[in-house]
Amino acid sequence: MEIDGTPYRTIWVEEPGKSVGIIDQTKLPHRFETVTLTSMDDAAHAISEMLVRGAPLIGATAAYGMALAVNEDASDAGLAAAYKALYATRPTAVNLRWALDQMQEVLGDLPETDRAAKAWSRAAEICDDDVEISKNIGRHGLKIIEALAAGKATGEPVNILTHCNAGWLATVDWGTATAPIYMAYEKGIDVHVWVDETRPRNQGASLTAWELGRHGVKHTLIADNTGGHLMQHGLVDLCIVGTDRTTATGDVCNKIGTYLKALAAHDNDVPFYVALPSTTIDWTVSDGVREIPIEQRGGTELTRIAGRLADGSVAEVDIAPEGVAVRNDAFDVTPARLVTGLITERGTCPASEEGLRQLFEKS
Amino acid sequence: MEIDGTPYRTIWVEEPGKSVGIIDQTKLPHRFETVTLTSMDDAAHAISEMLVRGAPLIGATAAYGMALAVNEDASDAGLAAAYKALYATRPTAVNLRWALDQMQEVLGDLPETDRAAKAWSRAAEICDDDVEISKNIGRHGLKIIEALAAGKATGEPVNILTHCNAGWLATVDWGTATAPIYMAYEKGIDVHVWVDETRPRNQGASLTAWELGRHGVKHTLIADNTGGHLMQHGLVDLCIVGTDRTTATGDVCNKIGTYLKALAAHDNDVPFYVALPSTTIDWTVSDGVREIPIEQRGGTELTRIAGRLADGSVAEVDIAPEGVAVRNDAFDVTPARLVTGLITERGTCPASEEGLRQLFEKS
Repeated sequence: MEIDGTPYRTIWVEEPGKSVGIIDQTKLPHRFETVTLTSMDDAAHAISEMLVRGAPLIGATAAYGMALAVNEDASDAGLAAAYKALYATRPTAVNLRWALDQMQEVLGDLPETDRAAKAWSRAAEICDDDVEISKNIGRHGLKIIEALAAGKATGEPVNILTHCNAGWLATVDWGTATAPIYMAYEKGIDVHVWVDETRPRNQGASLTAWELGRHGVKHTLIADNTGGHLMQHGLVDLCIVGTDRTTATGDVCNKIGTYLKALAAHDNDVPFYVALPSTTIDWTVSDGVREIPIEQRGGTELTRIAGRLADGSVAEVDIAPEGVAVRNDAFDVTPARLVTGLITERGTCPASEEGLRQLFEKS
Repeated sequence: MEIDGTPYRTIWVEEPGKSVGIIDQTKLPHRFETVTLTSMDDAAHAISEMLVRGAPLIGATAAYGMALAVNEDASDAGLAAAYKALYATRPTAVNLRWALDQMQEVLGDLPETDRAAKAWSRAAEICDDDVEISKNIGRHGLKIIEALAAGKATGEPVNILTHCNAGWLATVDWGTATAPIYMAYEKGIDVHVWVDETRPRNQGASLTAWELGRHGVKHTLIADNTGGHLMQHGLVDLCIVGTDRTTATGDVCNKIGTYLKALAAHDNDVPFYVALPSTTIDWTVSDGVREIPIEQRGGTELTRIAGRLADGSVAEVDIAPEGVAVRNDAFDVTPARLVTGLITERGTCPASEEGLRQLFEKS
């Protein structure tokens, strides 16, 4: 996608075979800064300190981390050490492990001298494959937006509500929930996005609003509390969100608050779609609410907020009474009955076991 | 209620016939500061700058503002000027006008020399009457909590979720939604409150968490996004919220986001009650979603947040991309079908025309 007219991915090769560039997402939306990774340690730091985030981008960064590691030590022991170090950065990220396994698999059987070249080419492939998945999600989701646009009078945008950041910043490019939106924008369809602030980490305000704005897509920031009211008044045509984990039955585990928006969409007959790469489907889980453990994170995420002071410098402020008890569940589960459809790289299907099986032929 | 063991109301006479004390609520939760009002201008400033807020407290402050005005100029012209100045502080507040009319009515026919004494006594009555209304709401709501407590094992609290601040800080004492909670606490019932942060103005984090904590009531701050997830997991026994305006049919116009919590409560069979003084009932409105105009406020409420810096000083930070478009609806409407009951000063009734008529015998 573009940042003020310049095309970017979230991760790119700077000097071939030597260094990789990323956007320091911890600085957004206050400052746009890129960082050059020249070592495995740089890559590990970028993941653990969340300069990069979003499952696909974490995987891509880990892949390049392995490539940087091979530059330093191409031995089996070096590979094993790099795998271990990178895996430890965010151990619960499924894509991280997947990407590391991919790298290990193609490198392990090669002579040491051939490993560096292969590592860089395989990391690039992992990135390109991720872009292709996003683009396919975009193409399938685009049809839904096109159908809604066909029912609009001239000058009336298709209003799409999204929650959190399932945007291009979370992937290598295009995003998941945003891919259909960027595709529609590229085709000249009049789209406008309601961006949920997404407390407590504010990914909507910090990342989604920023990336849509820099690319030029019309959007309006709202409090997470606002979406239901907008739906009651006909101001939302469509919801599209991402997912961290999708059950075999179509339940969706996504950022906390997604369930409330799905309830409001259902109550107001607004279509509610979830965009996902099929890698997020957990075929072993059938009841999301009962079976998926939800991560509880530190209360400071809620009570301490970073922003710009009047002089432009960035500072953190504490907004709640000192010592207040906080509960901070990171995700919730939206039951499949509230989901209109799942937009995957293979097409859109009902949020059900049958729907998913039709596309993926798994049992 | 108490602040760290000391009983307080939100407004009190400091020097009889001369001055009035209030809590500067704009400083909460960062600093507890009281302010002495010695003139009508002080009272007007306290209302317009939101040192006091909440419909009942605004009315009480306006009443004392009239008393302070009479001290300065007890003539008819003086009364008229004070009415006008105080009314202009927050012209859409229904209680403000009501309190001013009350004062005008009792003072207008008196000789000038008798007006000061009457003004101070009538203002005190208005405060006492408000406390009595809150206590009656509390007594009726207490029965609901008692019934839930009876079904709990020892050591299991009754978990009550509330949104925004319908607490004692919004009234003269006890609050509306919080009155049953404080009554239950006073009776030794084990209660625990889930406090919605309540974006964009953070009244839950700033005021509700503060007042519950200072009085000693167990509570946990959560993001507005979290309540649905807690209800899915059986962690909420009851919701109680306030209301700014209630229709003759039981629709409830309250702080933005209330509707989403009501949807989640309905989806999880959690009782959802609204506590209200009958003065908030608008007998002329029958369809809340269609008929009640919703105030849209400035976007800065969402994008700029006040808090404590590391050195303890209070500063404001901007959290969103510069220049981002924001929509900031202050309220939403929860349809009566999602409301289990209305807790009023006369008792609890179904959220319906019949229910309200049974208690208030109006047509």
